[in-house]
Amino acid sequence: MDSSYIQVTPIKQSKIDTVDFNKLDFGRVFSDYMFECDYKNGEWQTPVIKPYGPISLDPSARVFHYGQAVFEGMKAYKDDNDDIFLFRPDENLKRINKSSERLAMPAFPENYFFDGLTKLLHLEKNWIKKGFGNSLYIRPFVIATQPAISASPSEDYKFMIILSPAQAYYAGEVRVLFAEKYSRSANGGVGFAKAAGNYAAQFFPTSLAHKKGYQQIIWTDANTHEYLEEAGTMNIFFRIGDKLITAPNNDRILDGITRKSIIQLAKDNGIEIEVRPVSVAEIKDAARKGELKEIFGTGTAAVINPIVGFGHSEEDFELPKLEKSYASFFKEKLMNIQYNKSQDPYGWRVKI
Amino acid sequence: MDSSYIQVTPIKQSKIDTVDFNKLDFGRVFSDYMFECDYKNGEWQTPVIKPYGPISLDPSARVFHYGQAVFEGMKAYKDDNDDIFLFRPDENLKRINKSSERLAMPAFPENYFFDGLTKLLHLEKNWIKKGFGNSLYIRPFVIATQPAISASPSEDYKFMIILSPAQAYYAGEVRVLFAEKYSRSANGGVGFAKAAGNYAAQFFPTSLAHKKGYQQIIWTDANTHEYLEEAGTMNIFFRIGDKLITAPNNDRILDGITRKSIIQLAKDNGIEIEVRPVSVAEIKDAARKGELKEIFGTGTAAVINPIVGFGHSEEDFELPKLEKSYASFFKEKLMNIQYNKSQDPYGWRVKI
Ligand SMILES: Cc1ncc(COP(=O)(O)O)c(C=O)c1O
Ligand SMILES: Cc1ncc(COP(=O)(O)O)c(C=O)c1O
Repeated sequence: MDSSYIQVTPIKQSKIDTVDFNKLDFGRVFSDYMFECDYKNGEWQTPVIKPYGPISLDPSARVFHYGQAVFEGMKAYKDDNDDIFLFRPDENLKRINKSSERLAMPAFPENYFFDGLTKLLHLEKNWIKKGFGNSLYIRPFVIATQPAISASPSEDYKFMIILSPAQAYYAGEVRVLFAEKYSRSANGGVGFAKAAGNYAAQFFPTSLAHKKGYQQIIWTDANTHEYLEEAGTMNIFFRIGDKLITAPNNDRILDGITRKSIIQLAKDNGIEIEVRPVSVAEIKDAARKGELKEIFGTGTAAVINPIVGFGHSEEDFELPKLEKSYASFFKEKLMNIQYNKSQDPYGWRVKI
Repeated sequence: MDSSYIQVTPIKQSKIDTVDFNKLDFGRVFSDYMFECDYKNGEWQTPVIKPYGPISLDPSARVFHYGQAVFEGMKAYKDDNDDIFLFRPDENLKRINKSSERLAMPAFPENYFFDGLTKLLHLEKNWIKKGFGNSLYIRPFVIATQPAISASPSEDYKFMIILSPAQAYYAGEVRVLFAEKYSRSANGGVGFAKAAGNYAAQFFPTSLAHKKGYQQIIWTDANTHEYLEEAGTMNIFFRIGDKLITAPNNDRILDGITRKSIIQLAKDNGIEIEVRPVSVAEIKDAARKGELKEIFGTGTAAVINPIVGFGHSEEDFELPKLEKSYASFFKEKLMNIQYNKSQDPYGWRVKI
């Protein structure tokens, strides 16, 4: 890999000493450098790395008006030898380009992505802290920058990568509400894409759920609200008896990388897994019978997020506390791969 | 009205002389000033008017990642006496605040909106050109500015108004495609809001329609694709025989101000109007029987946009060319009110 074509504008002084790595709020502190690449005249220009700082845009930039923006979420991990690893980063590149396509945005070239990311992470290696659970969260994103407020695709874009140090994610006890009125996405819509607008659309219904004492919503199909799909930033698994169930991908659901890794791990560890529509009725029924053992969310930020209870139609259900949960089994398996503490038969771990 | 609290930073020199007002591309040229108001610490700060120019945001500003952004579209008109008018501007304020609420954003105060808009337009009165069809397009919008990439509502926002001179809108002959696969919005979603993300979601399907020779898509319900809802930036009316039909508002459809004005005008001018679900089957059937006389779109930008044909399921239909169309009848009625050329029994026209 020759990334010498990516020029680095040096910082004057690192701000790393001002950061308390034991007290990190997710996504609030950013590292010293950022990666930037502009799309103009029909092509991506030579990318650069420069000091993290504000960007200047015309108030008519299309991203502000038409939400033409997509993003990704990934993490860099460090092992005890100071080696740096990514987890299935090729999947993130594929997905951001799939998201971009759905929003009529140009694909980002593979070499710019990996050359840029690798160079940036090597430059910022001190921001990746050792220790199980510590990571450097990586946020690639693309925004439409053309100054024009007609409702049509932008001709200019900006691709960026910013980095934010993160500690092990602990969300507290999470209770979820199954959606009955609001929805996250439509058939034939953009739910499968990491499109910026998908997220803002969830904030208000989620704030209503908060008021009722739930931390998150599990979205149901917009049509009947009878089938459970995914949470705001996590895919969802249900364990009934010893069987694991998760909804199939479709154009409403994000094809999560953690999700597909867990499906693989389940198969290879003798855990029965069904990928099929999961109905609200079935889950409530299983809960009533005491057969619903676990619900957990999966995503890059939290890895696995166990859910302790759920509400639907004014009814509340608590889940049992298990000694040996699938959630903790998968979390350990996955993190051992991510932090280079175990074999990786899948080739998911990429040393950079 | 005392708007003296809104400080104006003067421009050095107007760029108005560099603009050819007879050759305007929609939404590409902006006037000398812009209105800006920041939301911080739980309240809107004192607004200002300053020279139009770039804004500087942290790359982690939530608008870039989560699409937390809403907007409005309005116009200022000038009559032969150089008086300036708005059309139902209270509706735009109500609607932007409704949009904001759905995206968990704070409402913008009425006095700041009208004081700011009025002061800005008086300052920019030379940018509003006389002549039927000329106008100054007004784009109020709100974006989430807090530098934090956790998926939750921003604590900081920026409200802005920018202005762009516009000529009479002529889109050429417009053929539309009725959506069969893609959709614009879900039940329980944000389709009724002018949420930024709703627009980017339409770009890709629309580009596919372009390739097939259609200029726009008429969206159908995401669930069955059997009912016609609205176009990308226009509500839609159908004329069967002498009866006018348009879809009812719901949480998927934008409550258009032009639409509701036309419903009123139809009622008061003896034109039979039905507000009810319109099925694709019914429209195709009427077209086959020669009873479908007109389809037209309605919106602030185009006022009325006649549609000359439509496609669905590999079938194409052309509409008759009428001497006396409802489209031209309503367009004239509305524009006469907007440009102070007729009585305005409704109080829609607001002189500022
Ligand atoms: C809507 C949504 N679902 C699921 C996920 C989980 O995906 P992944 O496991 O690839 O992080 C995410 C994001 O991370 C998401 O935004
Ligand atoms: C989705 C959508 N539908 C309809 C309209 C028409 O609304 P109005 O008549 O208020 O301009 C607009 C915007 O202008 C729109 O964005």
